[in-house]
Amino acid sequence: MSLKFDLISVDGNARRGRVHTAHGDFETPAFMAVGTAATVKALTMEQVAATGTQVILGNTYHLMMRPGGDLVEKMGGLHKFSGWHGPILTDSGGFQVMSLSNLVKMKEEGVEFTSHIDGGIKHFMRPEDSVHIQHQLDSNITMVLDECLHLPTTRERAEKNVDMVTRWARRSKEAFIDRDGYGIFGIVQGADFKDLREKSAKALTEIGFDGYAIGGLAVGEPQSVMFDMIATTTPHLPDDKPRYLMGVGTPLDILGAVERGVDMFDCVMPTRAGRTAQAFTRHGTLNMRNARFTDDKNPIDDKCGCPACKLSRAYIHHLVKCNEILGATLLTQHNLWFYQDLMRDIRDSIEQGRFKEFKDEFIKKYIKENKDEQQ
Amino acid sequence: MSLKFDLISVDGNARRGRVHTAHGDFETPAFMAVGTAATVKALTMEQVAATGTQVILGNTYHLMMRPGGDLVEKMGGLHKFSGWHGPILTDSGGFQVMSLSNLVKMKEEGVEFTSHIDGGIKHFMRPEDSVHIQHQLDSNITMVLDECLHLPTTRERAEKNVDMVTRWARRSKEAFIDRDGYGIFGIVQGADFKDLREKSAKALTEIGFDGYAIGGLAVGEPQSVMFDMIATTTPHLPDDKPRYLMGVGTPLDILGAVERGVDMFDCVMPTRAGRTAQAFTRHGTLNMRNARFTDDKNPIDDKCGCPACKLSRAYIHHLVKCNEILGATLLTQHNLWFYQDLMRDIRDSIEQGRFKEFKDEFIKKYIKENKDEQQ
Repeated sequence: MSLKFDLISVDGNARRGRVHTAHGDFETPAFMAVGTAATVKALTMEQVAATGTQVILGNTYHLMMRPGGDLVEKMGGLHKFSGWHGPILTDSGGFQVMSLSNLVKMKEEGVEFTSHIDGGIKHFMRPEDSVHIQHQLDSNITMVLDECLHLPTTRERAEKNVDMVTRWARRSKEAFIDRDGYGIFGIVQGADFKDLREKSAKALTEIGFDGYAIGGLAVGEPQSVMFDMIATTTPHLPDDKPRYLMGVGTPLDILGAVERGVDMFDCVMPTRAGRTAQAFTRHGTLNMRNARFTDDKNPIDDKCGCPACKLSRAYIHHLVKCNEILGATLLTQHNLWFYQDLMRDIRDSIEQGRFKEFKDEFIKKYIKENKDEQQ
Repeated sequence: MSLKFDLISVDGNARRGRVHTAHGDFETPAFMAVGTAATVKALTMEQVAATGTQVILGNTYHLMMRPGGDLVEKMGGLHKFSGWHGPILTDSGGFQVMSLSNLVKMKEEGVEFTSHIDGGIKHFMRPEDSVHIQHQLDSNITMVLDECLHLPTTRERAEKNVDMVTRWARRSKEAFIDRDGYGIFGIVQGADFKDLREKSAKALTEIGFDGYAIGGLAVGEPQSVMFDMIATTTPHLPDDKPRYLMGVGTPLDILGAVERGVDMFDCVMPTRAGRTAQAFTRHGTLNMRNARFTDDKNPIDDKCGCPACKLSRAYIHHLVKCNEILGATLLTQHNLWFYQDLMRDIRDSIEQGRFKEFKDEFIKKYIKENKDEQQ
């Protein structure tokens, strides 16, 4: 397999690295902007790039429904289709099948489901199908199909799950067509059972992947459980491959996960928040709908260099109040900019051996002054 | 008064000029992008500028309702508030009062109305009030308050209207605070009565304005009537002041009006069309929702240099079908880009003394191959 990862430096368990793909490199720890349906919602790809985003995530479930894997392949792949010419990771579609579809039936062979998007046609997705669609999308990083359990769950259910997704991971790897600058990641499961997480990590490492994701977390469990599961898992993953915590998370989640050895993240939080008037700042989040911003001449965050922060909170508040599209655009770009500034600061602090110091200082400011979140 | 206008060259009745304002110049014939509520819908101001737009229009009615003249003044004016640092023209609010408000009562003193936006509070707007709000907005070009009649109307009604809006125009000019690089335009009315149009034009010229608008057209009458009224009006306006046809229009409307001596235009058409999946091209308009674009690798218009035209029709169709905000953004920017390309071509052709040739060629291509509009 041929997705190259350089581990540049470590600071405690926090890691500073670089992933090389056929469509360029990205620095880790990395935050991937979520580009569900071949668009990071409300932004042009130029606006996404301006935030410092180096890699985006495409959702295979949405893309297989609309416009379909065949169409994207015919159009020359997701990069050409969407105009994002940097690295792209795609999920397997499994998570959305289970959260967005109807009549989901898990079988050893694969997963059966229907979707309202195409009027309830019955679909059957095997691990091989997911890999094939991601190949059609020309994704730089393919994720294996897995089954993501809701927490809490029983030990019996979690054990069966680990065994099956391990078999699926093996089938996925066998189906993956190896190319230079492309890779496939396995996904560690095991619910909140430490020994099952360890078992899953070891089994996947034995199969051998270009990177390892930690799945099935940030599904409602307390942050401490999530951190425990990460700390349990990462020691059993190879040092020379990137580690990806799926669907996470808040700035504080990310800091805690980096501290425990995670390299890659994705989350809808900054982009979705941007469409619901929430702004991330170094002093916590702001609800821009709040009337106290009506005549506030300050920028959202005076440390931020994004286009929204060249304007006033009053203007952003006005746009939000009038339901103007520009409000969503500016806030989405601001939030991604904030996340990418955070990732850059994290990377710098690891290189300089002061990650913990940076983390503590960030959290102190972020929590202490976070008035909106406490309201 | 101190809004400078240079008439650079003429070709028949078509004019090539330049307006100088306190916030920079704009070339005429000019198309003003409509920035209703301190935003050109779906675009950042950087994206607006990239289209070649040099001047935008703000709607006083919307802005007085939200966020209010006092607030915009407190924030340093519309340029600073919105981040558009080029020239801004504002309408008087009169047109929207009559089309969007309830319980409208016209009186000699002004217009009384209620609006749903602020929960039905009774407002009274005198010509002096409109000028004052536009001053608060820091608009470079203030428009006088007028009353826009629906067509058809009676001669008696139209005559009364001309007399009253002339008195209002005088009051507006008296209320206008003269500053360097700022000006006020009168608005010619007279419905579709040639002698009343002439009377209105002469009366306004006698009062003396920085520019003259032609109002009360493009309100449902045939294009030939509109062209007749323009041709009747422009000979009675001074050559050394810009002329502005309000709320117009299609590319063909603009070409016909330029031919008859108009210098400035504004219309929601390119921006509104961008939010309803319509794309302007040199070969007519396209409905991007149409399934025939599903796998169309061509750009919307292969002569266009906008960001949307670096992508395929298939991608734009996909975005439209998924109701993605980016679809509205890309199409809005493309349409404005198309309009500004048209204005640039018009200006070049006038300078080169080949306006009529350019016009005929443009129309031939635009109409002949305009399949969608005929569907």
